Amino acid sequence: MARATPGKKRKAGNGHNGTTTRRESMALRRTQTEQTGEADSMPPARTMSPADQRRPVKGRLIIIGGHEDKESERLILRQVTNCARGGRVVVCTVASDVPGELWEVYEHAFRDLGCSDVVHLDIERRADLLLDPPLQLLDGADVFFFTGGGQLKITTRFAGTRLCAAVEEFYRRGGTVAGTSAGAAVMADTMLVSGTSRESHKIGETLQMAPGLGFIRDVIIDQHFAERGRIGRLLGAVAQNPRFIGLGIDEDTAVVVEREEHLTVIGSGAVYVADAEDVTYTNVAEEERERTLSLFNVRLHVLSQGDNYDLRTRRPSHEFAKAVEKKIARTEERHHQGEAHA
Amino acid sequence: MARATPGKKRKAGNGHNGTTTRRESMALRRTQTEQTGEADSMPPARTMSPADQRRPVKGRLIIIGGHEDKESERLILRQVTNCARGGRVVVCTVASDVPGELWEVYEHAFRDLGCSDVVHLDIERRADLLLDPPLQLLDGADVFFFTGGGQLKITTRFAGTRLCAAVEEFYRRGGTVAGTSAGAAVMADTMLVSGTSRESHKIGETLQMAPGLGFIRDVIIDQHFAERGRIGRLLGAVAQNPRFIGLGIDEDTAVVVEREEHLTVIGSGAVYVADAEDVTYTNVAEEERERTLSLFNVRLHVLSQGDNYDLRTRRPSHEFAKAVEKKIARTEERHHQGEAHA
Repeated sequence: MARATPGKKRKAGNGHNGTTTRRESMALRRTQTEQTGEADSMPPARTMSPADQRRPVKGRLIIIGGHEDKESERLILRQVTNCARGGRVVVCTVASDVPGELWEVYEHAFRDLGCSDVVHLDIERRADLLLDPPLQLLDGADVFFFTGGGQLKITTRFAGTRLCAAVEEFYRRGGTVAGTSAGAAVMADTMLVSGTSRESHKIGETLQMAPGLGFIRDVIIDQHFAERGRIGRLLGAVAQNPRFIGLGIDEDTAVVVEREEHLTVIGSGAVYVADAEDVTYTNVAEEERERTLSLFNVRLHVLSQGDNYDLRTRRPSHEFAKAVEKKIARTEERHHQGEAHA
Repeated sequence: MARATPGKKRKAGNGHNGTTTRRESMALRRTQTEQTGEADSMPPARTMSPADQRRPVKGRLIIIGGHEDKESERLILRQVTNCARGGRVVVCTVASDVPGELWEVYEHAFRDLGCSDVVHLDIERRADLLLDPPLQLLDGADVFFFTGGGQLKITTRFAGTRLCAAVEEFYRRGGTVAGTSAGAAVMADTMLVSGTSRESHKIGETLQMAPGLGFIRDVIIDQHFAERGRIGRLLGAVAQNPRFIGLGIDEDTAVVVEREEHLTVIGSGAVYVADAEDVTYTNVAEEERERTLSLFNVRLHVLSQGDNYDLRTRRPSHEFAKAVEKKIARTEERHHQGEAHA
């Protein structure tokens, strides 16, 4: 169905296939919307996630707190672009109510940064995806990018499908999965869907959580973190199960997670790591529902660009912020040289 | 100058001296504003704080995060009222641009809760206070209450005066000093004056701090905490000197500090205690000014009503939220019985 050029052919191309890609994208969207299989028209076969959770992960996640800079320094999107190694970026707008607009924004942003193969995946109906998953979109892809929107749109339409399993497999084998805002929240095994901002957590307060895509385990991610005053809800979430590490990511800030172990911060804001392992007391199971959360002895790290965090040892370490910028610039330089020699 | 009835006479009175007190208050304000000593008209003698910082404190602080409930349950103001033991409450509106309005609000609130002797202290000009400090207002007072407004108004007009020294002495001898919002911030030896909310702290960002009244040491207080998303700026403050404990107090929430050692939370929100003693790294003295704060290994406690914190051992403990309400109600009951027997 979807008309994505295979990766090899694309890689041998002249790097100026913008029109084709745009057309592919349109074709895909049309296919998705026109195949209006009714809800009761069963897909060919129900898919299961084939991924073995214990198998080592070779891929990389780029988890972005929303509103990443698209105009000036663009450090985060440059990092995403570097991961594409000049190859394909799949922009998945399934989370959004305005997929066309977001696709335009990101297509422009990635092309402007030198990505020649940017394709659009939108999913308006899960049924369409079940009937005819555009698996070929992933052929030769280096980056799968989730835009923002609503995290439940991503899971309800996409999770548990063959395409989702293929993306997970792509990630486990070494691909980069990036996501911003809602696209960040879904990375975890348990995702925060909603909860109040700018107030401390009440025990009985609706703090909606749901299973996420599970690309990173034992972590709960919150985004737009400082901007929306979300420390209360993140602590409310980790209090319920102190095994989970709370990751609060500011806007224009991202964590790059290598092999599900090693985390590095890039961007202009901070990442708050709330490690509840040593928590000695919480009242969430003890007090009346209208009471406010108590939580003693959280280990809190404020990380900024260049800082690292090891998810196994739960220890932070630091590097100068400038070093990250230099590293990204050096990689870009190598890519440019590679293109020049090709 | 100020016409405050002496404490003993008042306490022997019929408990219905509202009109007199109101008149006293008006007299005091008039005196303060009419004695328009010019800035260069020197006061009789420059005052020094006589308080010995190492002398044990017998008093109590009630540090309120702003917007305490004045209409329904009124737990915090009931606690303040209990500390007045049926005696005098001095409402100090020096922080405010609308002292008359605030005085009306608090006079009504305290009288409604059974305080019969509520007096108003406003200070429009420091020079007036230096010339003729209304020290007699404190005679027989049990509570000195700072309303909200601007914390620099409190320190610039009030700190270092004989009246301020008298309030400190009153506190050291066993009196209760309460303050809400700006009136909360000034309690500490270093007070936060301004800084950005709802974003993570930038190293070179203006985070205005100034010496406070020093009624509680080694603590930095921030108010309207969750409501204004201030975790970033509080951590930015403690990062600069990890000896200080950051206390972030939500609205309608207070800490009651007994003898500068033992802290109990009351009210509907939370109090965030950021203990930076074990901090292993911060970039505030290492990175460029435009970089975002890094701070590793903060111990964070979220306390809610009933929870305690020992400022010497830096350990939290807990009690049921209901217990605090019962305790306040029992004290009220005892006061009523005392009045009935008198």
